[in-house]
Amino acid sequence: MFKKVLVANRGEIAVQIIRTLHDMGITAVAVYSSADKDSLFVHLADEAICIGGPQPSESYLNMAQIISAANLTGCEAIHPGYGFLSENAEFAELCETCHIKFIGPSHELISLMGDKSNAREAMKKAGVPVIPGSDGVVKTSAQAELVAKTIGFPVLLKSAAGGGGKGIREVDRPEELASAFEQTQREARVSYDDDDIYVEKVIRNAKHVEMQVIADDFQHVVYLPERDCSLQRNHQKVIEESPCIFISPAEREALGKIVANATLKLGYTNTGTYEFLMDADHHFYFMEMNTRLQVEHTITEEVTGIELVKAQLKVAAGQELDFTQADAAVKGHVLECRLNAEDPSNHFAPRPGRINHLFFPAGSLGVRIDSGVAQGSFISPFYDSMIAKVIVHLNDRDAVIAKMNRVLNELEINGVGTNQQFLKYLINTDAFRTGHYSTSFIENDVLTRKEGFHVAESV
Amino acid sequence: MFKKVLVANRGEIAVQIIRTLHDMGITAVAVYSSADKDSLFVHLADEAICIGGPQPSESYLNMAQIISAANLTGCEAIHPGYGFLSENAEFAELCETCHIKFIGPSHELISLMGDKSNAREAMKKAGVPVIPGSDGVVKTSAQAELVAKTIGFPVLLKSAAGGGGKGIREVDRPEELASAFEQTQREARVSYDDDDIYVEKVIRNAKHVEMQVIADDFQHVVYLPERDCSLQRNHQKVIEESPCIFISPAEREALGKIVANATLKLGYTNTGTYEFLMDADHHFYFMEMNTRLQVEHTITEEVTGIELVKAQLKVAAGQELDFTQADAAVKGHVLECRLNAEDPSNHFAPRPGRINHLFFPAGSLGVRIDSGVAQGSFISPFYDSMIAKVIVHLNDRDAVIAKMNRVLNELEINGVGTNQQFLKYLINTDAFRTGHYSTSFIENDVLTRKEGFHVAESV
Repeated sequence: MFKKVLVANRGEIAVQIIRTLHDMGITAVAVYSSADKDSLFVHLADEAICIGGPQPSESYLNMAQIISAANLTGCEAIHPGYGFLSENAEFAELCETCHIKFIGPSHELISLMGDKSNAREAMKKAGVPVIPGSDGVVKTSAQAELVAKTIGFPVLLKSAAGGGGKGIREVDRPEELASAFEQTQREARVSYDDDDIYVEKVIRNAKHVEMQVIADDFQHVVYLPERDCSLQRNHQKVIEESPCIFISPAEREALGKIVANATLKLGYTNTGTYEFLMDADHHFYFMEMNTRLQVEHTITEEVTGIELVKAQLKVAAGQELDFTQADAAVKGHVLECRLNAEDPSNHFAPRPGRINHLFFPAGSLGVRIDSGVAQGSFISPFYDSMIAKVIVHLNDRDAVIAKMNRVLNELEINGVGTNQQFLKYLINTDAFRTGHYSTSFIENDVLTRKEGFHVAESV
Repeated sequence: MFKKVLVANRGEIAVQIIRTLHDMGITAVAVYSSADKDSLFVHLADEAICIGGPQPSESYLNMAQIISAANLTGCEAIHPGYGFLSENAEFAELCETCHIKFIGPSHELISLMGDKSNAREAMKKAGVPVIPGSDGVVKTSAQAELVAKTIGFPVLLKSAAGGGGKGIREVDRPEELASAFEQTQREARVSYDDDDIYVEKVIRNAKHVEMQVIADDFQHVVYLPERDCSLQRNHQKVIEESPCIFISPAEREALGKIVANATLKLGYTNTGTYEFLMDADHHFYFMEMNTRLQVEHTITEEVTGIELVKAQLKVAAGQELDFTQADAAVKGHVLECRLNAEDPSNHFAPRPGRINHLFFPAGSLGVRIDSGVAQGSFISPFYDSMIAKVIVHLNDRDAVIAKMNRVLNELEINGVGTNQQFLKYLINTDAFRTGHYSTSFIENDVLTRKEGFHVAESV
């Protein structure tokens, strides 16, 4: 096992990785920007090196500085967390060149999955159902139209290099296609310096269902119980749940076998997540693969009892998985709410500031609150606005929702605005209670007040 | 179900009960002493009534004041927590007289179990193995000697009304018996106003193993996985663990059936714990029954996933248990350390004071920290010195101990002295690691430095 590992991230995920390193007796080195010098993760690390200014490009995206820090401190491996460099194939390759183990899959697979069109083709070959669409990129709007007529309107035009909402456009009618194609190409060129476009059918009223796998170097793959991440706003997940209440054990097993087989065929190791849309008829369509730990891995740790960061470290160190598929069975029910420093009454604008009072109501069966902040912490405008993941894990969903309500009531945070009331609102909607929602629920129903959420009163 | 419940306790158990009430949508009323006016449990309650001064007799033991508070606020039930009035049969009866539901067993059974000699006889009749000894009380030292010769020296002379270390004396030889009998009788008379004495064989190198049950009004009893509470100092538990590493599933089931049957025979309802000594040959000997929730019920919640305070409330409200024996299976491994405000270098003298900095490292799989304090809280000299229960629950014991070490390293508390380093020392002894310890381990081995604990350096 490694003796010393560098954590190339910040906030709650850096805290989580440092804790796992300490649990395993490994020395943890933090790197931090000047904006984070007083952060909890810096305090918890055994060594910490300032690698630059507050802009991500100066620090957490600064590959040379991070590699230098690893060399300087004698780290054998780097854990990239999520975001920042975690899905950067160039960084993973640079680590390899510098004889530092990148804790994640190979740079070739990061690269493959980073190109959404190539990823789609690779998944088709590996037996994973994909959204009907073009075989690879389409070069002209005429080609796009041919595909669209075959699979049927409406369709999405998507940038192959894209992700995160930019370079995606829905086209409902043939006559809109030509101009939409041109606009999407232009946007893709500006955003990603790459104007490759592919076509996909629009899946209406879909749920976002994802399944994480973990694989070692010895052809062992374990799939983990699925997560429902349908409650999203602006493509950002807000509430996550595991297992999905609308998926049967047989469906779980069938989907699990598909992703486990694909993982083997791809030669994929370490952890990754297959993201699917699920339509009303329970058909699954591959969207993309995240080649890293995700924010919501926490609920999978809870529902299985498997420590996923620890598993990543073991696999990266060349060890075999020390659990089997049977160990990854569903144990109870888990819900996670992302508490963000943002203002629901003002288009969810970030609300940075100093936390001058903080009370996390942990200390109750099944309550876990993962956070990178403590009383006195500063929520910086330079980074994402997540304050904490509020997690409840009990035997049944009704008890989980009841306890989540109580925890959200009891939680106290002063000094920054948060979405605390918005989260409470969401978990008490009829749609959420009964499972009748899709990925557009927050934007189309809640925020248009169809569901009666009165933003101004709620904060 | 009740609409409003009074919590007749303070500190972490009051917090825990109030949280459970809120999880169930029940209004929580706190009663508090003037010393506790700024306490977390008062802050969390929906209503709070000051019932007297800081001395327990003025407030938490003041039955009339508590009953008045319940009547004044319209509470239908009282949860007594642990300690204070929780095993006071008179109080349970007073509640009944006043038409307030006492959340616990009947006052008759509290009374029966409160007399250690009668409890022993009742258990014998109910098929529970007891320590060889006298049938009931012995009136003279000659009678005691007859019993002692039959069961063999060494024996204990014990006050029937006793508990908590006073009125117990070990006798190794026949010639010491007469004077020891007289002394024990005198001590019992002074301490408990009752000089009834009974005789028990001394069980050497024993472990403290206990098993909790929960029973409803419909003859359903579930026994819960055993707890090892052998690591004690001055009869106070310091570290608790479940399951016991030295007990097989067959032994668990056998002991479980014995206590479940006894519970049925006694007509016992709500929750209670059978405390046993276990000798080197794995024979179990009943010591006493605690007719209430115990401090360490938390580890049983963790290892089973069953919320025990919730179960108590349901049973008290006349509902059936909503789980079965199968639901109470062992799930993983749990360890609990009691963090106290005390000074290990000065005979563990209490170290009250204001907590001016507090950081609880929750936010990691399996870590739960139950506490009645927050930053700024005052640890009062009037009450017990427990600050928090630090609990770790994972799939296997080695991982649990590793994580407990990390959590104890990471935990920060300034303003009061604590036993944090002592706890860390204990969980890293060879004896603890291998399970080779008895109830005398801390006092006979650790504190005499046989085990190398250097008190002065550790704090």
